[in-house]
Amino acid sequence: MSDLKEQIDDLGRRARAASRELARLPADRKNAGLLAMADELLASQDELLAANARDLERASGLSGAMIDRLTLNPKRIAAMADGIRQVAALPDPVGQTISEWTRPNGIRISKVRVPIGVVGIIYESRPNVTSDAAVLCTKTGNATILRGGSESIESNRAIAAALSRGAARAGLPADAILLVPTTDRDAVKIMAGMDRYIDMIVPRGGHALIEAVVSAARMPVIKHYHGVCIVYVDREADLAMAESIIVNAKTQRPGVCNAAETVLVHRDVAERFFAKAGKALLDKGVEIRGDETVCQILAGQGSRATPATEEDWSREFLDLILAARVVDSEDEAIDHIESYGSHHSDCIVTANPRTAEKFLNEVDSATVYWNASTRFTDGGEFGFGAEIGISTDKLHARGPMALEELTTYKYQIRGEGQIRA
Amino acid sequence: MSDLKEQIDDLGRRARAASRELARLPADRKNAGLLAMADELLASQDELLAANARDLERASGLSGAMIDRLTLNPKRIAAMADGIRQVAALPDPVGQTISEWTRPNGIRISKVRVPIGVVGIIYESRPNVTSDAAVLCTKTGNATILRGGSESIESNRAIAAALSRGAARAGLPADAILLVPTTDRDAVKIMAGMDRYIDMIVPRGGHALIEAVVSAARMPVIKHYHGVCIVYVDREADLAMAESIIVNAKTQRPGVCNAAETVLVHRDVAERFFAKAGKALLDKGVEIRGDETVCQILAGQGSRATPATEEDWSREFLDLILAARVVDSEDEAIDHIESYGSHHSDCIVTANPRTAEKFLNEVDSATVYWNASTRFTDGGEFGFGAEIGISTDKLHARGPMALEELTTYKYQIRGEGQIRA
Repeated sequence: MSDLKEQIDDLGRRARAASRELARLPADRKNAGLLAMADELLASQDELLAANARDLERASGLSGAMIDRLTLNPKRIAAMADGIRQVAALPDPVGQTISEWTRPNGIRISKVRVPIGVVGIIYESRPNVTSDAAVLCTKTGNATILRGGSESIESNRAIAAALSRGAARAGLPADAILLVPTTDRDAVKIMAGMDRYIDMIVPRGGHALIEAVVSAARMPVIKHYHGVCIVYVDREADLAMAESIIVNAKTQRPGVCNAAETVLVHRDVAERFFAKAGKALLDKGVEIRGDETVCQILAGQGSRATPATEEDWSREFLDLILAARVVDSEDEAIDHIESYGSHHSDCIVTANPRTAEKFLNEVDSATVYWNASTRFTDGGEFGFGAEIGISTDKLHARGPMALEELTTYKYQIRGEGQIRA
Repeated sequence: MSDLKEQIDDLGRRARAASRELARLPADRKNAGLLAMADELLASQDELLAANARDLERASGLSGAMIDRLTLNPKRIAAMADGIRQVAALPDPVGQTISEWTRPNGIRISKVRVPIGVVGIIYESRPNVTSDAAVLCTKTGNATILRGGSESIESNRAIAAALSRGAARAGLPADAILLVPTTDRDAVKIMAGMDRYIDMIVPRGGHALIEAVVSAARMPVIKHYHGVCIVYVDREADLAMAESIIVNAKTQRPGVCNAAETVLVHRDVAERFFAKAGKALLDKGVEIRGDETVCQILAGQGSRATPATEEDWSREFLDLILAARVVDSEDEAIDHIESYGSHHSDCIVTANPRTAEKFLNEVDSATVYWNASTRFTDGGEFGFGAEIGISTDKLHARGPMALEELTTYKYQIRGEGQIRA
């Protein structure tokens, strides 16, 4: 462990030094670096595919979905390069003046955006995270220490090496993008304790990974946790719209954090809603886990539901399973969401603007929807160009995290010799 | 410990429930509560003074400065009440729209400020922190769990009780302001593990206290750490201004975090600077700990300096001691600040705007000054009305923390049935 610690400490020192250089670079230098990184990724296609083939060889025990996430092909490599070019085209938040004022004593205070410094990213499986994370950090003048999953270590190494070559060719610091070269599990713990060199860690992965980072971390951690997203169908909902939204939110991509896991339906419209939406969901292969009333309604309609357990209300199924409950009021819906939800993305379907505004204000989630699918919680869909994750934390960043969320600020104060009385 | 845990868990549950009520209150209701709290504090003067007398009785072993910090008197109680009225008069950040845009598919995204939820404050000695922290949190719709030092427990209880009475009289939730009633040290650890109920902790105190909170915390911690503030006197400095700034920054209140601890002087002006400023500092009783050159210069001027040790460059003396070093360039000054400083408040004195801008940009500190004293790093001096602390962290809040820093944001999204393709 002490060798490993020295090795990772060395990465930290190098990243810290690179971050100081990066912070001084103007936007055009960083953008030139990004374009060179995109070129180098395309030029390294054979190398990337060969490295990926070695990962896939070891991956025989994984599920089909996991193997799909792990696989690189020319189209996916082109998509990564394209993503980099899109980020290069976005405005650079660094150096922006957030606010500026003069005090009665004449000192001028400017609050300006600056890079955070060194960002650690700890992630699992998908090798494209290597590129996405490194590129967003480079754009914002942050050095990156990447720690990917063991199953994609060869691909991650090849991608990070290509990005570093591109960066260096354009005159960016060689240590701007560093990959922890080992799959040793102790590396996560060592990184989490290295608050001297790492300013922020973003863990992306399963519960165990996030838990390991949070309990060991001495620096701020922005968690990318699970989503128990809930759709509430109000008694004044357009029921065709409600059906379309719940079918989209549940089935369009059930394995992601912004998919819906629970539907709450007002008692006054429950019969009518389930008569059509129940069928539509079953047709898509969705298993409904209902409370007593939902089970009765569906049985009465010649349809079916499994009785929900108490645990089902707070579960992230990540699958074609939907918990369903009938409520008597909007307040009951909000209470349910506050008790069982994960404060990620929640939605009300209603034609009544007053009911909607109450819901938008009182539901304490990163993203609250009125008449739109929870599936829009995404950096790309928000217009951020890309994302480094979706924060389920409340501090610093909430919801989709992109360029602005990779910056902090400092106060610059200009005076003419003022001293404090 | 399990009884204590249950007791503090109960505080957490009550604070969480109160925070939901507080978050819904409009600004005028919260402000009415604040004014009632100020009135109640004044009306409870006898009770507060009696409680404070009990603390002072137990305090015989403390230093004069500590006893002064602990002492309440009618003037200080009036100042607390006055501070509350000032906060009531400030604009409420909650509900402000930070930004708003419409996506090509027609969904409208609003990023709006909301309370954080439940804020834990862990602090030492000064009882007025009880009032300052509770009041800033109430204004921003946050519930507060306060954990003050054992030396001021009686005063803290009396202040918190008075504030709660005032709040309740104005119809604010009774559990908006809760004080941990015990001085048991395990309480800090229990609070730090209670991420279910507490969204953020602000520790204010010595190194040991902050360390205890950071290592146990499962929620974000915004540290209020030490300040090793550095003033750099450039070769193009107005030396009279430089002297005035360093004397102010070192001696106006040496025991606080924004006081200067080190002066760096460009070699070209070192003789001239120390000839006058050296004397001025010595006249104020300041001990200078110099590098070899500074010691030689001062000896040659018939003055004196103690040789500085390596540790002196990163020490927060909090006393009339100043480390002093001669540097050959602005870059050397910046390198020194990045290596030994604490990224709190640093200053350049120069008449050259290009040199100043380079310093303002490259020094990675919460507050960077050009020709003004570091003593201005303060919520009141910034025009924030008050402060809950000065963050030495980079994430969420940096520098003086006041109302805006006690909020987070959420995205409210309004659609007409949009689903994701």
